[in-house]
Formats: sequence, C-alpha cells, structure tokens
Amino acid sequence: MENTIDTIYDRRSVRKYIDKEVNPDLVDEILRAGMFAPSGYNKQPWEFVVFNKKEIINEIKNMHPYASSLETAPVCIMVCGDTQKELAEGFYQVDCSAAIENMVLAARALGLDTCWMGIYPWEDVMAAFSQRFSLPENIKPFALIALGYAESRQPRPKRYDSSKIHYNKW
Amino acid sequence: MENTIDTIYDRRSVRKYIDKEVNPDLVDEILRAGMFAPSGYNKQPWEFVVFNKKEIINEIKNMHPYASSLETAPVCIMVCGDTQKELAEGFYQVDCSAAIENMVLAARALGLDTCWMGIYPWEDVMAAFSQRFSLPENIKPFALIALGYAESRQPRPKRYDSSKIHYNKW
Repeated sequence: MENTIDTIYDRRSVRKYIDKEVNPDLVDEILRAGMFAPSGYNKQPWEFVVFNKKEIINEIKNMHPYASSLETAPVCIMVCGDTQKELAEGFYQVDCSAAIENMVLAARALGLDTCWMGIYPWEDVMAAFSQRFSLPENIKPFALIALGYAESRQPRPKRYDSSKIHYNKW
Repeated sequence: MENTIDTIYDRRSVRKYIDKEVNPDLVDEILRAGMFAPSGYNKQPWEFVVFNKKEIINEIKNMHPYASSLETAPVCIMVCGDTQKELAEGFYQVDCSAAIENMVLAARALGLDTCWMGIYPWEDVMAAFSQRFSLPENIKPFALIALGYAESRQPRPKRYDSSKIHYNKW
C-alpha cells in the first residue's frame, strides 16, 4: 500500500469511473477511516448513508447541481452531521470535513478514487436531501462522496505555493 | 514510511511534546500536504502562519482557551481562510479543515504529532488573533496546529461504530 505522503499528493477528484463494483469490505474500511478523524471534544458528530443501488444514485445525481461523477460511480456516500452532538454552531461542518478527507485518502490508498461534492452550504440542496431521505431534524446532509475505480487518472498537479506561508507574523 | 490506513488509525491529538526542534524541511512538507487538499472550485483559500519562536508560541497559548499543548510544542501553525476566495459563505471552513487533516496525517507519517485546536467558530477568539497579528479583513484565523515530537503516544482507540452506517436510506 502506498505511503501517506504519496497518497496525499496522488488524490484527485475523479468524475468518470469504470463499470466495476466496489467490494463492501473496502467501503467499510473507508467508513472506518472517516470515523478515525479528530473532532471537536471528540463528539464524532458524523453519520453515513451508503448508496449502492444505481436507481437511487441516478436520482441523487439529479438532485445536485454538480454531481456528474454520479453518472458512472457505483457507490455514493452521503456524510451527515448531527447537530445534537455539536457544542457550538459550526462544529459539525469542520468535523465532517476532516472525516471526509480521511475517507478520500483511504479510498486512494485502497486503489479507489472519489469526488467530494458539497451539499452544505446550499440551503436549497440541503433541504432537498433532508426531505427525500426523511432525515431527522438534527441530522444535516453535508456532502456526497462518489466512489469507484477511475476511468483514468491525472498526474500530480503543482499546488505548492510559498507565498501562502508566513513566519511568526502575517 | 507508514502506509496511509495505519497513519489514519494512529493519528492522535498529542498535548505534551519533548524538547526537540522540528526540521524546517519537515514543516515545509507538512505545509505542502495541506496545499494538496481538495477545495471548493479548487480555490485553495488557505494561508499558513508558522510560529517557531517560543516567545510568540507562549503568547498564543494565553490567547486560546484550550491550548495547553502549546506549553511544550516547538512549532505552532495557524491556518487561515481567505474569504475573497470563497464562492459561498461557509466554504473556507470546509476547505481549511480538509487541509488541516492532510497536515496532521502528514505529520504523523513523518514521525511527528499534532493537536488541532479550533479558533473558528468562537468570534471572540477569532477577533483576538485577527487583532494581534494584524490580519487583513479577508483573512480569517481558523485553527491552530501544535506540532512536535510526542512525549508519549496512546494506543489506537476503538472508534468504529456500525450504528452510524445506513444503506440506501436513513
């Protein structure tokens, strides 16, 4: 398995996947990785809805403005935040983001690729997912992760920018 | 170097560090890992202020309610979000969280440990950091990362919780 630093550099958002199922054990490993993220006061305010039926994934694709990756993705994971586990407003978004980053890295390390698509902060998109899946009032749909085997992979980009680093003062 | 999945499981918040400097090349590698996070519309709205002077780190410790880890950390990185690079309110927090998760994992992979401490969402703490470091109006202090060599490390916790996983419906 690839080492951590290379995985971080090789992760890319992938929008086209080949027609190959994802072993449920791999999905489980990715979910486990999400649950190992740090969270505020260790409240772990995340919940996961795994979609692996083409019919529902197609429906979700049409509920989100930028979800073309769901055209071919065999799996889609909706990550939700639980406001009852939040000690201050704004926490679940931070904690769920850390969980998702763990998940997209774990996926890459397992030979899979992902595309992270926000549901938050668009209130109309959040409302549509809450309604469609009858989410309890305290469970907020936060983001979707498309998951599958990439049709092709891009090379590493150049992203390092020393102008963003400051020492001991702004 | 450790593989990605093990790094994810071995990352812990560490609050006591030994008296050992961190090589600047390692700090740079950690910052690079942060810059490889995904971000909304690839806007990369993050900025980093690296503190490596004990005097300033001590001062910062006293500006934050839960920053005991800065008592012994040889390095502290403040991650900020740039609201001018946000296409919707709420984006920089998500993007900076992904960057920080990359950084805490990269640190672990390099033999270092971290403690992630939020500045956001507490407006009074944010205001104190903005003022102390004369941050421009569009640069929002988001979080601190303590960085160093752990005095001791805890074993892996049990965090997997199958009750948080739902299939095809809530």
